[in-house]
Amino acid sequence: MAFDAIETPFGKVDKIIGGSATYVAYAASNFIKPVQQISIVGNDFPQEEMDQLTSRGVELDGVEIVPDKKSFFWSGKYHIDMNTRDTLVTDLNVLADFNPIVPESYQGAEFLMLGNLMPSLQLSVIKQLRTRPKLIVMDTMNFWMDLAMDDLKAVLKEVDVLLVNDGEARQLSEEVSLVKAARKILAMGPKFLIIKKGEHGALLFHENHVFFAPALPLEEVFDPTGAGDTFAGGFIGHLAKTKDISFENMKTAIIVGSAMASFCVEKFGPQRMQEITKADIDERIAEFVQLVNFDIDLV
Amino acid sequence: MAFDAIETPFGKVDKIIGGSATYVAYAASNFIKPVQQISIVGNDFPQEEMDQLTSRGVELDGVEIVPDKKSFFWSGKYHIDMNTRDTLVTDLNVLADFNPIVPESYQGAEFLMLGNLMPSLQLSVIKQLRTRPKLIVMDTMNFWMDLAMDDLKAVLKEVDVLLVNDGEARQLSEEVSLVKAARKILAMGPKFLIIKKGEHGALLFHENHVFFAPALPLEEVFDPTGAGDTFAGGFIGHLAKTKDISFENMKTAIIVGSAMASFCVEKFGPQRMQEITKADIDERIAEFVQLVNFDIDLV
Repeated sequence: MAFDAIETPFGKVDKIIGGSATYVAYAASNFIKPVQQISIVGNDFPQEEMDQLTSRGVELDGVEIVPDKKSFFWSGKYHIDMNTRDTLVTDLNVLADFNPIVPESYQGAEFLMLGNLMPSLQLSVIKQLRTRPKLIVMDTMNFWMDLAMDDLKAVLKEVDVLLVNDGEARQLSEEVSLVKAARKILAMGPKFLIIKKGEHGALLFHENHVFFAPALPLEEVFDPTGAGDTFAGGFIGHLAKTKDISFENMKTAIIVGSAMASFCVEKFGPQRMQEITKADIDERIAEFVQLVNFDIDLV
Repeated sequence: MAFDAIETPFGKVDKIIGGSATYVAYAASNFIKPVQQISIVGNDFPQEEMDQLTSRGVELDGVEIVPDKKSFFWSGKYHIDMNTRDTLVTDLNVLADFNPIVPESYQGAEFLMLGNLMPSLQLSVIKQLRTRPKLIVMDTMNFWMDLAMDDLKAVLKEVDVLLVNDGEARQLSEEVSLVKAARKILAMGPKFLIIKKGEHGALLFHENHVFFAPALPLEEVFDPTGAGDTFAGGFIGHLAKTKDISFENMKTAIIVGSAMASFCVEKFGPQRMQEITKADIDERIAEFVQLVNFDIDLV
């Protein structure tokens, strides 16, 4: 949970709510309650944002508030193609000393989503849970591959699903072919691998199976910030709602995650996630069905 | 119909059979016979290659053989990512004076595929057909947008389906968003637009509808040369076989085209296209169904 300042070819915002956990919670809360959040903020994080999350069934017992420090702040500028961005500012602030503590009331959680963070902290959360969750999903990024590859590989052994983008999959596996990369990564621990390709969709690998979900072709991508986290929130939200962690149901979960991400990019920050209704989500999912549905009987 | 010399990260060939019409004919002949070819070659084009095509139901009455000249020759080198390439040599040879003549025996053709060529020659073929084909599909490239945009736009008014890649769609429409690009291009004449995104699949636009077909994630892409033409051949081959030019059937045709293209890239030139059987094609199409098939009842 953090603040972001974002510049895209379509506009600019100075300081809005952001952070992986925020996006994951907004997306997942459409499918499952409660969402039990673990994060850290400073004295500057607005109470009304906390209240907004609480009203959606997000429990904040695991969110530490540090009275004499500021929240994490990130500032970035997207290039014209919206696929690449420059980081302008990273102020760790409270994140510098983050030591996540799992509240007693969170014990027994069946679905665990590890947002992108220092791998040793992700591992610490797993270790604090006395009963191993039914499903552990992990996000990470190239930054940790550069700085903490050993720790990252240790977490990989403990998770069920890894979420990375195509560049990260290649870096982690040292393979150019995504099919070869997937085979290597699945041997590192996760039973399922999701490779996100941004506007080109996402691939799900499991054993010898592969599933492809497209991204919805959008007229305009206004702000891609948080799209990956929103995807993750929709993905695990659907799985937690249905309590079905089969490959077949993960395909559906990826479509749900893609639909949620397609909303996220329509406005700055998590704004669009705060507006959408169940009817909007159902309609968007129906568009995905239309997008990929075809009849092969004729062949 | 031409010769190519190709270098990829996986190997090199000095002079093999190539050309749009060759790839289109090999792919389409799996679905429909006869394929009535119009092209031009020099005195160096091997008789056995002609015989190979004839044995697959490709009629060559419209292929002009120029006794004192050489066939078109292209040489290129692919970069490590296989998505980009440098052209090393382009020897127009016989193509410099090509003036396609539609043989009397081709009159009444119901499905016309215009391979990538000078737009004025594409238009000339359309004009020579006394009965307007049921479906005209056109391929083109950025080269003609740079050099002959007015001629290109004149052909666009006469065709039903345009095939371009994402960069070409952006150049033709002067729009970055592919959704906006599609809307502009559909206003230029074609009723259907296919935007090919290489390893990221293809989009079909028609009125307000959009369909997305993925490319099969391949362990290795050996040589991408001819993949777009092979896609086109599978696409129009399926449509000609089923004689159904509805949006629904075009979706299926795109899956068929994608399956054919996925074979093409497995070996140099059209070699793989000469080997595959109906059983191979059916199996590959089944893989595409698996790749995108999901059950949304749970949501």
